[in-house]
Amino acid sequence: MQSWVDGTPAAAINLHNRGLAYGDGLFETFAVRHGRPLLLDEHMARLALGCQRLSIATDVALVADEVRRYAAQLGEGVAKLILTRGDSQRGYAPAAGVAARRILQASPLPSYPAEHADVGVRLFMCQTRLGEQPLLAGLKHLNRLEQVLARSEWQDGEHAEGLMRDGQGRLIEGVYSNLFLVKQGTLLTARLDRCGVAGVMRAALLARAEMMNIPVQVRDLAFDELAQADEAFVCNSVYGIWPVRAAGALNWRPGPLTRTLQAVARTLLET
Amino acid sequence: MQSWVDGTPAAAINLHNRGLAYGDGLFETFAVRHGRPLLLDEHMARLALGCQRLSIATDVALVADEVRRYAAQLGEGVAKLILTRGDSQRGYAPAAGVAARRILQASPLPSYPAEHADVGVRLFMCQTRLGEQPLLAGLKHLNRLEQVLARSEWQDGEHAEGLMRDGQGRLIEGVYSNLFLVKQGTLLTARLDRCGVAGVMRAALLARAEMMNIPVQVRDLAFDELAQADEAFVCNSVYGIWPVRAAGALNWRPGPLTRTLQAVARTLLET
Repeated sequence: MQSWVDGTPAAAINLHNRGLAYGDGLFETFAVRHGRPLLLDEHMARLALGCQRLSIATDVALVADEVRRYAAQLGEGVAKLILTRGDSQRGYAPAAGVAARRILQASPLPSYPAEHADVGVRLFMCQTRLGEQPLLAGLKHLNRLEQVLARSEWQDGEHAEGLMRDGQGRLIEGVYSNLFLVKQGTLLTARLDRCGVAGVMRAALLARAEMMNIPVQVRDLAFDELAQADEAFVCNSVYGIWPVRAAGALNWRPGPLTRTLQAVARTLLET
Repeated sequence: MQSWVDGTPAAAINLHNRGLAYGDGLFETFAVRHGRPLLLDEHMARLALGCQRLSIATDVALVADEVRRYAAQLGEGVAKLILTRGDSQRGYAPAAGVAARRILQASPLPSYPAEHADVGVRLFMCQTRLGEQPLLAGLKHLNRLEQVLARSEWQDGEHAEGLMRDGQGRLIEGVYSNLFLVKQGTLLTARLDRCGVAGVMRAALLARAEMMNIPVQVRDLAFDELAQADEAFVCNSVYGIWPVRAAGALNWRPGPLTRTLQAVARTLLET
């Protein structure tokens, strides 16, 4: 399916777009099933927060409507929304009154091996560390060179994801997923107020876990807590949950809380 | 003058360009006088280093030649080169064998007030701090949200530049310039191996200062060294050197070393 720019089919974008010049914008990646964008409200809530924090003026309801229409035409696949601050001449200063620009792109649903969800994945231990920037932490913005560098560290098919740490060595997330650990029945995941992307599936799982009275801690995760974890899994809004079967020399089997939440993620990814 | 994409006049770029998707690329901004790009060798050296560190395969000599031809047509102005890793489908993994893509854009030489160079500029004290990321430090890459946020902090015409610090409060640079201090005849500027952009004019001035037997220190600069400085100036490869007349409550007059190096910068920006 062809891409849209500001609601109209297009294959190219103005060279003065600030997304290209400075990575000045945000993106969201929607799984689309039966013509519907999944977890739309959660994606739009994160986008709205990003727009607020970056002072990008946009009508989020209009954007949501456009995503719905695009997904309806796409049917099945992945819809990626890029929202940039629009066009401007040279210089970092955003021009006043310039309209944000919306891009929608389609790709097929990725065909991951069934064993990723069934028996779990191996995580590559990335050397690329996440820098700390509280002003951008949590947002899915377009400044993603750290992820590009991290993803470049492995080419083998053995590792489905990479584990990223911050400069202090604390566990943060996957390259395109969030990380959860389970320790003595408590669900652990990293706070993402200094670095990291606050994933939509992460947020949805945290909300469901609270409802299900599963103890949850969102806090700093020291590196050695990985070795102490009873279970580990990664998640995102396209594939749901993959148990982690190995990370470096460490090994796990998919545990009971992982399986419980995997079922939750499956329901979240059904229309 | 019209923009070029890969050497051909164009106004738009493919939506799958990784510069747009992830800020996956680098840029250089050339002052162009009498049809020649100034400090071309220095700009291309930084670009080559950036390509090496980001593993972007490109023929830098070919790019330099293209910049020369673009500048020859432009005559007078500013030529901005954006070099991205090229196009790819969704996902952080760079596709193997994809060609880097070159964009050249023209704008007029900025018409700064003469007093910026004569009596100096006021620096806005930015609250936006630079995050530490040694893998990207020094490079002029396309992940520039920190600069966008910093430049958004002031709209008045009183401040020609903003002063940026790192998370520890150390002095680093301007939003679009590098910062130098003078203390007892020694030229000081921040090391840029954790954050910051290693400017081409900064590099050229450091090299000339060494030749002129001016003592130079490139090191961490504590915030209170600003108050202790005898002189302060900012520099870049378009405007050369501006003395700093004020930063917050601090005031200076243009000092002798600033004036000496200002003359050096002027010769560097003559063809």
